[in-house]
Amino acid sequence: MSKTERSKPKYPYFEEETSVDVVNARMGPDVDPRLREVMSVLVKHLHAAIKEIEPTHEEWLQGVKFLTEVGQMCSDWRQEFILLSDTLGVSMLVDSINHRRPNGATENTILGPFYVPAAPRYANGTNICLDGKGEPMVVRGHVVDTDGEPIAGALVDVWQTNDDGFYDVQQKDVQPDWNLRGVFTTENDGSYWYRAVKPRYYPIPDDGPVGKLLGHLGRHPNRAAHIHFIVSAPGYDPVITHIFTPDCQFLAEDSVFGVKDSLIADFQKVTDPARAYELGFESPFWSVDWDFVLAAKKDTTKE
Amino acid sequence: MSKTERSKPKYPYFEEETSVDVVNARMGPDVDPRLREVMSVLVKHLHAAIKEIEPTHEEWLQGVKFLTEVGQMCSDWRQEFILLSDTLGVSMLVDSINHRRPNGATENTILGPFYVPAAPRYANGTNICLDGKGEPMVVRGHVVDTDGEPIAGALVDVWQTNDDGFYDVQQKDVQPDWNLRGVFTTENDGSYWYRAVKPRYYPIPDDGPVGKLLGHLGRHPNRAAHIHFIVSAPGYDPVITHIFTPDCQFLAEDSVFGVKDSLIADFQKVTDPARAYELGFESPFWSVDWDFVLAAKKDTTKE
Repeated sequence: MSKTERSKPKYPYFEEETSVDVVNARMGPDVDPRLREVMSVLVKHLHAAIKEIEPTHEEWLQGVKFLTEVGQMCSDWRQEFILLSDTLGVSMLVDSINHRRPNGATENTILGPFYVPAAPRYANGTNICLDGKGEPMVVRGHVVDTDGEPIAGALVDVWQTNDDGFYDVQQKDVQPDWNLRGVFTTENDGSYWYRAVKPRYYPIPDDGPVGKLLGHLGRHPNRAAHIHFIVSAPGYDPVITHIFTPDCQFLAEDSVFGVKDSLIADFQKVTDPARAYELGFESPFWSVDWDFVLAAKKDTTKE
Repeated sequence: MSKTERSKPKYPYFEEETSVDVVNARMGPDVDPRLREVMSVLVKHLHAAIKEIEPTHEEWLQGVKFLTEVGQMCSDWRQEFILLSDTLGVSMLVDSINHRRPNGATENTILGPFYVPAAPRYANGTNICLDGKGEPMVVRGHVVDTDGEPIAGALVDVWQTNDDGFYDVQQKDVQPDWNLRGVFTTENDGSYWYRAVKPRYYPIPDDGPVGKLLGHLGRHPNRAAHIHFIVSAPGYDPVITHIFTPDCQFLAEDSVFGVKDSLIADFQKVTDPARAYELGFESPFWSVDWDFVLAAKKDTTKE
């Protein structure tokens, strides 16, 4: 068969100018519509990036090697691609897109890798600091709806680092089980309160390829000091969020872009020994007032 | 310290609208300028893709898991991220960008994973098919410059699959060493010729996550039948290229987008027993005439 006898190709051959169309036209007729949409957009932007960067063969190979190392760093205990997503702002972007809340509702931020479900349920006021380290802190507030009405029986699930900047699960041989974790339930007036210690900043795991990349980019791996919460109640959108200390040196440079202006709390330093005594604290201690505002679930009758 | 006392952040906090600027502003002042450029463009297009796709949290997690599987499929013998790059047209795009040749010079295409350096050097005319399988083929032509002047002493490094669709290195226990590989040197008139067998189409490795993705996309893993060449001569840009058979059923659907119109050769079926006898072939056999056109190196005096 000679070249001139062959039939016209179903699709044109690959050319630089038409690369996106050629690749996307290759998908079959029965592809899941959402997958078709996702892949078409990914190929479009991936090719646009390549055309703008014009990588050399060596640079392309460096990219391949980097992604391979990221994949190979992953284990049951480590998700390096999530770290990559976090440090490039992708995780926060996905979070923002999925949590465009009505004005006034508490803003979401990323879950992070250290959440452990089914923490102990405690009576309000319980001190969840089990290792005795750090500056004592009391957190008090209400869970309310977007009209300011209290929500009784809401769950406030909290976790944070200890004063050394580690979560209990990172130091299983050092910290008591469930140190600085607990689930509280709001009273009839929507109120909750508990005792703990002021949280510390800490680095995300930076001994892998993502940490190395951050180094090359002149970036540090530290997360601004924060407390994690998941607040939920029947009939409302649960909120996964943090509150941040206003005095952390990394507040404006959180390595995963988790800080939102609306999530920076007042941390009041209290030096009155009588107030400390009431709480069973040494003086001074930190006092935080924080309300959570939940939005009603869409398309769902409140239970 | 109260919220109002804290100093203004050096950069604004992350918001959906400003996400690209916030992430890229985080790079330090001493970052390698090329790395800064590459990362800025990648973050811009990555965020644009996310904003267009609006992935759910579950879809984002599926993406993370897919990339992790791709990384974990890689080994000393398997580069799944290169397969991903190949099947999304990225490898061909990078190749095209780096090989915009003067009109008339032989076009490049991708190297592929089966090249082995330092194949045996043979006299012109040698038959490199060592397993006796397949339809005999003779390839004849010249290596010339862009003015059509012959280039003597050019190296024509060739490799291809056997008639079962496998390279020797994929079947180390089955095929003779260096089966269907060899390096030929052009004569004073620029000519080269050798004997082999008509190449077969074959699938790229499709037992990993990339093969699974191709399946979901309604795409097959087959490469159109081709012969690989690296042609080089002092003072000229080496060309890494293929020639394709015009009658392959996958010509218009090469799984890695390697086909270019200019690289489809005439494969003439010869039934004359006298001509077969001259070549030591059974009749019929395939005859291919193919010239390679090399462009002079830029900024280099021809040696």
